[in-house]
Amino acid sequence: MELAAYLPVWGRLTRAQQEALAGNAVRRSVKKGEIIRNGADCTGLLLVLEGQLRAYILSPEGREMTIYRLFERDVCLFSASCMLRSIQFDVIVEAEKDSELAVIPADVYKRILEESAPLSNYTNEMMASRFSDVMWLIEQILWKSFDKRLAAFLLEEAAIEGTNTLQTTHETLGKHLGNPREVVTRMLRYFQSEGLVRLSRGRVEIVDEAGLRRLAE
Amino acid sequence: MELAAYLPVWGRLTRAQQEALAGNAVRRSVKKGEIIRNGADCTGLLLVLEGQLRAYILSPEGREMTIYRLFERDVCLFSASCMLRSIQFDVIVEAEKDSELAVIPADVYKRILEESAPLSNYTNEMMASRFSDVMWLIEQILWKSFDKRLAAFLLEEAAIEGTNTLQTTHETLGKHLGNPREVVTRMLRYFQSEGLVRLSRGRVEIVDEAGLRRLAE
Repeated sequence: MELAAYLPVWGRLTRAQQEALAGNAVRRSVKKGEIIRNGADCTGLLLVLEGQLRAYILSPEGREMTIYRLFERDVCLFSASCMLRSIQFDVIVEAEKDSELAVIPADVYKRILEESAPLSNYTNEMMASRFSDVMWLIEQILWKSFDKRLAAFLLEEAAIEGTNTLQTTHETLGKHLGNPREVVTRMLRYFQSEGLVRLSRGRVEIVDEAGLRRLAE
Repeated sequence: MELAAYLPVWGRLTRAQQEALAGNAVRRSVKKGEIIRNGADCTGLLLVLEGQLRAYILSPEGREMTIYRLFERDVCLFSASCMLRSIQFDVIVEAEKDSELAVIPADVYKRILEESAPLSNYTNEMMASRFSDVMWLIEQILWKSFDKRLAAFLLEEAAIEGTNTLQTTHETLGKHLGNPREVVTRMLRYFQSEGLVRLSRGRVEIVDEAGLRRLAE
């Protein structure tokens, strides 16, 4: 498999290491909505060749909360969490769009990690980057009220999708933000009454982007 | 400086790497309450030889929230966050008890990190361990009510201090848990009315440990 374009550290690996990675990586196609990794599975390291993934946690009552998204060229480290014994938490990874992945088996990656300082440092950077995402999230939850978080999330989604008309349900928004559907519906109706959005079935349209931005900040 | 006993990876470093670390490490004594690292400072890697540190975040309004504690033989990685460009968040580190530290300058550590797979893998494990602490915390905040979190925190403090009589103020508890003092006071008074704790000036005494444990679970 052609991994060189997806692993920035490729050129600093030995020939044998490159061959072990390329020879053991498997291509996998996943459909939107498919669960790629559930809890403590050790699926292997996932490279996103195309598409979009969502990593989330689940409350004992089944409530979801998105902790980060993975886009083209991102690497999902926690799907190979068995590599690092200090990782003591479970995230679920779901395809948010139809996606193409390269899966590198955890044992192959771990063996090279142990001998290669460049690959290990690259892994450090990936983890630090996800850690930063989660720290940002914790600050949002702790210090920001739900109206600001929802406004910021709608703007982020519009940027990702490249449109102000979002095809999404109140339930899906609740799953991203860790809140029940009813709470989302109440806030969206308030946004609508303020002229910030227009609601219709399965759709949220941003009509006052500047107003939403003022609210989010 | 004698670092061999504190860095489990010591025996897998080269002689030159060991000498660079030991020759550049500086011993530092800090008093209880002293801020060791503020925001984005790059103080260097801190090794706790003796004592106890607290890492916390600060809201725009000045509210504090403890994200993890560091005890003897723990390493504070984020005090050398400039080593990893992907770390995009600030934590403040404060001495919670009089402490003895070894400080390894960030540039010295980073240089060895880049060439040593063992040190890099060790750093990965440290980061994964702190990441797990923060994921645990996020789940607590998201899915657990404040009474359960406060009960769990009192039990944890009692375990750390080895006594059921905690010398602490409501304000300090609030700083650990990210809540205003008044919220803590109200909940502690409720705990007292339920016979779980006894309150006096600067002190919280756990009188019904089993009851507090039932509440926390």
